[in-house]
Amino acid sequence: MLRRTVVRTRKHDLLADALEGRDTRRLRHLLARLDPVQIATRLDNLSSEERLVVLQQVDPALRAEVLESMRYEAAADVVQRLVPDEAARLVDELEVDDAVDILGRLSKDQLEDILARLDAEDADELQDLLAYDENTAGGIMSPEVLRCTSDATVAEVLTMLRSAPEVPESSFYVYVVEPDGKLIGQVSLRALVTNDPQTPVEDIMERDVVAVRAEMDQEEVADVVGRYDLVSVPVVDGQFRLLGKIDVDDVLDVMREEATEDILKMAGAGEELAEAQSFRSAVKVRSRWLSAAALGGLFAALNLAQFEHELGQVPALSFFMPVVAGMGGNVGTQSATIVVRGLAVGYVGTDRLWQVVVREMLLGAVLGLLYGLLVGGVATLIGGTSVEPMQLGAVIALAMLGSMTLAASVGAGVPLLLDRLDVDPAVATGPFVTTTVDVLGLLLYLGLARVLLGVGV
Amino acid sequence: MLRRTVVRTRKHDLLADALEGRDTRRLRHLLARLDPVQIATRLDNLSSEERLVVLQQVDPALRAEVLESMRYEAAADVVQRLVPDEAARLVDELEVDDAVDILGRLSKDQLEDILARLDAEDADELQDLLAYDENTAGGIMSPEVLRCTSDATVAEVLTMLRSAPEVPESSFYVYVVEPDGKLIGQVSLRALVTNDPQTPVEDIMERDVVAVRAEMDQEEVADVVGRYDLVSVPVVDGQFRLLGKIDVDDVLDVMREEATEDILKMAGAGEELAEAQSFRSAVKVRSRWLSAAALGGLFAALNLAQFEHELGQVPALSFFMPVVAGMGGNVGTQSATIVVRGLAVGYVGTDRLWQVVVREMLLGAVLGLLYGLLVGGVATLIGGTSVEPMQLGAVIALAMLGSMTLAASVGAGVPLLLDRLDVDPAVATGPFVTTTVDVLGLLLYLGLARVLLGVGV
Repeated sequence: MLRRTVVRTRKHDLLADALEGRDTRRLRHLLARLDPVQIATRLDNLSSEERLVVLQQVDPALRAEVLESMRYEAAADVVQRLVPDEAARLVDELEVDDAVDILGRLSKDQLEDILARLDAEDADELQDLLAYDENTAGGIMSPEVLRCTSDATVAEVLTMLRSAPEVPESSFYVYVVEPDGKLIGQVSLRALVTNDPQTPVEDIMERDVVAVRAEMDQEEVADVVGRYDLVSVPVVDGQFRLLGKIDVDDVLDVMREEATEDILKMAGAGEELAEAQSFRSAVKVRSRWLSAAALGGLFAALNLAQFEHELGQVPALSFFMPVVAGMGGNVGTQSATIVVRGLAVGYVGTDRLWQVVVREMLLGAVLGLLYGLLVGGVATLIGGTSVEPMQLGAVIALAMLGSMTLAASVGAGVPLLLDRLDVDPAVATGPFVTTTVDVLGLLLYLGLARVLLGVGV
Repeated sequence: MLRRTVVRTRKHDLLADALEGRDTRRLRHLLARLDPVQIATRLDNLSSEERLVVLQQVDPALRAEVLESMRYEAAADVVQRLVPDEAARLVDELEVDDAVDILGRLSKDQLEDILARLDAEDADELQDLLAYDENTAGGIMSPEVLRCTSDATVAEVLTMLRSAPEVPESSFYVYVVEPDGKLIGQVSLRALVTNDPQTPVEDIMERDVVAVRAEMDQEEVADVVGRYDLVSVPVVDGQFRLLGKIDVDDVLDVMREEATEDILKMAGAGEELAEAQSFRSAVKVRSRWLSAAALGGLFAALNLAQFEHELGQVPALSFFMPVVAGMGGNVGTQSATIVVRGLAVGYVGTDRLWQVVVREMLLGAVLGLLYGLLVGGVATLIGGTSVEPMQLGAVIALAMLGSMTLAASVGAGVPLLLDRLDVDPAVATGPFVTTTVDVLGLLLYLGLARVLLGVGV
C-alpha cells in the first residue's frame, strides 16, 4: 500500500479535539492512523503536558521513532518529564546520533540519571559523543559505520554484511580503513552489488573521499555535503582515523536550523524559535536589539534638538521625516539582506568587495533620484503653509538622493566588512544599518533645510 | 589519498590573478589541483566572459561534472554562450535531472538548437521532463530509476544490477512495480546485500513507501523528504505509476533556494539572488517594495500635516518621531519574522491563531512599557524649551506603549491571516507591517499630544 503524504494539512484538527475532551480511546484510535513522522509533527506543536498525554497513547513500539522525528528541543522536553526509568528505556531504543542531540539538551542531573540506567558500554559511547560541541561535526555524527579492509573481496564484504548483527538502515557506504583505523577509501553498496564478487575492494574503492574533521562547524559540514552532493560524509580525527559519519538527513536539519538562525538574527529576534516560546526569554532576547534601536532613536532625538528653530518655523519639515528616514532604511535593509544571504550561500565572494559596494551605491543613487523626485514632487503639493513649496520639494529630493545612496553603501559595506573581520555578518547588520542610516539621513535632511531654506537668517 | 576539504577559503585568490594576467598555462596548472566542485564554486562567482575562459582550460573529461556542480543559472549562462555543437556535446554528458534544470533556463531557440543535435531518444526524454513546471516534483526528478517485479529473488535482482549497462551513482533503492508500472514497494540496496540471495523481493520490500505526485510543489517535496529523513523519494502520477525519483541532494538545493527566497522576500529585495545581478532587474525588483514604502510615507506625511499647528508650537514633538515610529517598526518586524519563519518550518500551527496574537500583544505591551518609560524619561531631560518636560515624557511613554502593543499584534496577526488565506506570509509582511505601524504609531503620538498637551487651546 502506498501512503498518501498529506503534509501541511490545514483542516480542523481532530486530535486537538480528542485531546481537549480527554477522550483517550478516541485519541488512541486517531493515532493508530498516523505514522510516526505525522505523530511527531503534531507533538512538536503541543504544550509540554499535552505531549505526555498523547505519547502515552502511542503504540510503545513506535515511541522511539516518534521521538527521533520530533524537533530535538521538543523531544528533550518530553524526555525530561518522564521518570528516569522510562526515559532510559526510551533513550536506549533511539539511534545514537538522535540520542546525543536529545540528551545534550537535558540538565546535568537528568543526564546522569539516565546514563546510570543504560548499559555501561552504551553510556560510555554516548558520553564520548556528548563531549563534542553540539554545533560541530562530532556533535551530530553517528559512530555506527560499516568498515572493511582494502584486501577483502566484494564477496567477503557481502558475507560480513549478511552476518552482521545489525546493519543501520541508512547504510550507503562501507568505509575502507587501515589496521590503525585510518580512512583510506570508501565503497558504495551500489559498487558492491554491481561488481563481480571476486573483485578486491582495493580495485573498486573510491580513494578520493571527501571527509570532514570532527571539530568542523556544522554549518561548514552542511556546505560540504551540499556542494559535493553527498548522502553521507565520514568524520575523521586529526590523523584521518575514522570516527563516524554524518548522514544527509541530519544535514537537512542543520541547514534548516541555520537558515532560521540567519532570518531571526536579521530581524533581531534571537537565534532560535525555541527562545520565542517562553515569555521571559522572548523579552530578553528581543530587548537586545530594541535597546540598540532605542539608543539610536535617542541619539537621533538629541541631534534633531539642534534643529529646534527650523522645525518650529517650518513644521512641514516634520511631515516628511518618516518618509526620508524610512526610504533610506528600506533600501539599506535590501542591500544588507542581499549581501548577507549572498555571503551565506557563496553567491557573493569577498575578493571583490569594492565592486559590490560601488554597485549598491549606484543602485541607491538611481533609486534615490527616482523616489526623491516622486516624494519631493508630492511635497510641493502638500507642503503646508510655512514654506515655499518648491524649496521644500528640492530639499526633500536632495535629502533622499543622498540618504538612499548612503544607505545602500552602508547596507552593503557593513556585512562585507564584518565578514572580513570574521564576525557573522547576519548578527549586526540590522540595528546598525537602521540606526546609522536613520540618524545620518535626518541630519542630512535638516542640514539641507537649514542651508537651502535659510530659516531664521 | 584523502582530500582535505577547505571550503570558504578567504585567502587571496591565485585563480583570479592568473585570469587577470591571461596566463592560460598557469590557469591550467591551478585548475588541475582543484576538483570539479571546487572549480564550479569559483566559476559561480566569475563574470560570464571569465567563466568561458576558465572552462576552456578545464580537463574536457571533467567539464560535465563541473557544470553539474555549478548554480543552474550560472551553468545555463555558460551553455548559452557556447556554439550549439559544443553545448550539445556537453549537455549529452550531463545527468538528466541537471540537464533539465539547465536547459529550462535557455531561450526557446537555443533549446531547440541543442535538442536537435542530441539523440532523438535523449531529446524526447528531456522534452518530456521540460514539460513539467520547474518548481514541482516533476521538474526536479530524474527518470533514471532501478525497477524490479515483486516475484524476483534477491539473487535475480543482484544479477540484473550486475548486468545493467549503467547503474546511476546515486542508487539506493530498487523500486518494485507491477507490470503496468504501478509502484507497490521498494527494496534498499542494504536489504539486498544483507538478505539471503534466495529470498523473494516480495518478502523484504517496504510496502509503506512515501511517494510524491509529479505536480507537488518542490517546497512540499523538501518538507516530506526532511520530515521522513529520506535519501530518495519516488515520483508517481495520479495512478501511482512510477515516473522517476528525486534524490536528497536536489532537495538540499531546493531548501537553500527556498530559504533564500523567504529571506529576500522579507526585505522586499526580490526572490532570487540572480535578480540582483543585472542592474536593471535589481532596480525593478526593489522598486516594488520601495514604491509601497514611499506611498506609505506620503500617506504618513498627509496625516502629519493635520498636526501642523502642534508641530509648529512644540517642535520637540518632532525630535521623538523617529524613535516612536522606529520602535514600533522594530517590534513589529520581530513579531512578523518569528511568525513567518515559524509557519515555514512548522513551528507555529495555524490552529491556535489567537493564542499567538495575544501572546505577541502582551509581549509588545511589556516591551512598550519598558521602552516607553526609558525614552519618555530621557525626553524629560532633552525635551527642549517649548513644552513642559513631564508632559512630553508622558505623551511619549503612552504613545510607545500603545504603538508597540499594536505593532506586535499587527506583526503577528498579518502573516497568520495571510497564511489562512493561502497567500505566502513572507511576501506581504514587511512593507505592510512597517507602513501600517508607522502611520498608526505617529497618529497615536500626535493625537495624544493634541489631547494631553492642550496646544493651541
